[in-house]
Amino acid sequence: MEDKHMLMIPGPTPVPEKVLLAMAQHPIGHRSGDFSKIIAEINQGLKWLHQTKNEVLSLTVSGTGAMEAGIINFLSPGDRVLVGSNGKFSDRWAQISEAFGLKVEIISAEWGKPLDTEEFRTKLTADTNKEIKAVIITHSETSTGVLNDLETINKYVKEHGEALIIVDAVTSLGAYNVPIDEWGLDVVASGSQKGYMIPPGMGFVAVSDKAWKAYETAKLPRFYMDLGKYKKANAKDSTPFTPPVNLMYGLQASLQMMQREGLENIFARHERLTQATRAAVKALRLDLLAPDDCASTAATAVAPSSVDAEQIRGIMRKKYDIALAGGQDHLKGKIFRIGHLGFVSDRDILTAISCLEATLIELGYEDFASKAGVKAAAKVLA
Amino acid sequence: MEDKHMLMIPGPTPVPEKVLLAMAQHPIGHRSGDFSKIIAEINQGLKWLHQTKNEVLSLTVSGTGAMEAGIINFLSPGDRVLVGSNGKFSDRWAQISEAFGLKVEIISAEWGKPLDTEEFRTKLTADTNKEIKAVIITHSETSTGVLNDLETINKYVKEHGEALIIVDAVTSLGAYNVPIDEWGLDVVASGSQKGYMIPPGMGFVAVSDKAWKAYETAKLPRFYMDLGKYKKANAKDSTPFTPPVNLMYGLQASLQMMQREGLENIFARHERLTQATRAAVKALRLDLLAPDDCASTAATAVAPSSVDAEQIRGIMRKKYDIALAGGQDHLKGKIFRIGHLGFVSDRDILTAISCLEATLIELGYEDFASKAGVKAAAKVLA
Repeated sequence: MEDKHMLMIPGPTPVPEKVLLAMAQHPIGHRSGDFSKIIAEINQGLKWLHQTKNEVLSLTVSGTGAMEAGIINFLSPGDRVLVGSNGKFSDRWAQISEAFGLKVEIISAEWGKPLDTEEFRTKLTADTNKEIKAVIITHSETSTGVLNDLETINKYVKEHGEALIIVDAVTSLGAYNVPIDEWGLDVVASGSQKGYMIPPGMGFVAVSDKAWKAYETAKLPRFYMDLGKYKKANAKDSTPFTPPVNLMYGLQASLQMMQREGLENIFARHERLTQATRAAVKALRLDLLAPDDCASTAATAVAPSSVDAEQIRGIMRKKYDIALAGGQDHLKGKIFRIGHLGFVSDRDILTAISCLEATLIELGYEDFASKAGVKAAAKVLA
Repeated sequence: MEDKHMLMIPGPTPVPEKVLLAMAQHPIGHRSGDFSKIIAEINQGLKWLHQTKNEVLSLTVSGTGAMEAGIINFLSPGDRVLVGSNGKFSDRWAQISEAFGLKVEIISAEWGKPLDTEEFRTKLTADTNKEIKAVIITHSETSTGVLNDLETINKYVKEHGEALIIVDAVTSLGAYNVPIDEWGLDVVASGSQKGYMIPPGMGFVAVSDKAWKAYETAKLPRFYMDLGKYKKANAKDSTPFTPPVNLMYGLQASLQMMQREGLENIFARHERLTQATRAAVKALRLDLLAPDDCASTAATAVAPSSVDAEQIRGIMRKKYDIALAGGQDHLKGKIFRIGHLGFVSDRDILTAISCLEATLIELGYEDFASKAGVKAAAKVLA
């Protein structure tokens, strides 16, 4: 049905009406006093969301651009880096590191499984010459719905002492507790179309004091993505280059909404939606790709064995106007992913699960008790 | 007065209501078939606007990012480049070139004056070893309202044969005739918040076949800004990274509006608004920064000698809710700039000029006949 579209993918995520209407306001000059006030308010909100006293820098880039900025500002050609790789996005950070001439060592795990923290400990402990300059980790791997154990890996990085920890928090920030200052995370990158509840078009990078020290000697070439320029402008409630004014109107509105809800409530909601989705999928006797103990709170990947994933997505889209994500690369056609990231409520999960049940019945798959999915989800949400 | 703001700066430029409302639509998945159709329509519109058969690539970056992409994709460290420099933005392209290790030779002119085309001819003719790999030119220098003679400089580049011509058309594209294929321009960069009539947040790069050949051997590191990735995705009506979905809704709407108006009408309108503005400024006995024969159709810079530029801007902003741009760097406080770029009509110019007259009278500057500015502008517009 026209205009009845419901987004249940891990990005772009649903956008509140308040944010859409804020974005529809006419832009003002980005060098005006009025816009400086908006920048100042946004910067405070970003620090709150990131649980940090350090600067959080806003760039006109996608999440990949934010992650690239997080890598190239703190390293030099030939630097040795460890990259955790267990999905499409973590693979990409290895590609970026290679494109910029870093010496990349990949610690990989099967797609759908979490990274083995012990492998990081072993590599870092063995590096007595302190040659490893950075460990690059995807916290929530959006392509598989796996949450890597960032806290433990970061502990080993801290024991190493020299290496920076560079984190892709694109689908964990605002969906899972990432206490940047408490954990001492050095570089944390994220993108607007995820937990931020605004459309795509902005990337964010939080930077620690230790990372800024590395910045001073880092030699990879940069200009548009030179975070030093953003830091300098930030101090004057400004930006080095023209910012995406209307997206920032939206960000101002969404940060206000998030602050009214409160960080703990936001994290609890994402945890609740995740558990409800997983309970429902199990009750429907479908397989979950990621194990329970490393479930991302951004998306749940389902790997149905006796019913076709693409057929499920097709009916969900055509008949119920619900967009689910498919699998990427070698998981294409083998999984579907239910997003529960950002502006998603308990009602949305029950809606998606009941439509999923109806879809399964239509496809002749009835290997579950009537209303089993909705019941299981309702029990978690109650 | 609240919400009565009128933008008369050379970016962000005024945005039509149709575009604002298009942007307020809920995003859809950027990997969906429906979004592919939007990408396809936009790509056709961009080719039309750029007067080219070649690909025009859309990036989530500001104009500076687009220009950086236009430089780093086609050159290698140590490459010799000629950079024309006569304002804030052309200066920036020299800085980018230096940041990426190019051998930069600057051909400069005073701010407010056009580049001397003969200097380019001399340098290019003398380069019999064909060491010059690119000539980097800002077509319309937004900071001073000067239009450089791109057509003539490009002729000398074509006679040279080896060098690419890389053009910042940020405030000329959609405001002045830039026939990319007819002139054989190799790389043309622009930004959304200008002639495109949409808010900031997107950058565009048109690339010639000759430039794509240079791309194959160009060695500067790149990933997020790797235009080859954009070209490959473009061929499938897709994007390599998450695009700014809502801005693209706006771009789709604005390209439709532009196509209804027609390229010739758009250029004629910008020329008319420019001439009307300049005639009015002269009638008000204020000095124009740029000479008549190199006037940018994006903005007119006024350098008042006996009345304070910042006072004029202050009254225009506070009393008449009209935002004019100030001077940048050493021109700060010495000039003000009237934008007539993008979604600006004859009525807007008469409005701005009559308010400017009232402002001058309030400041005790009455060195002109009553209504001289409006009369002069009206005569051009009639």
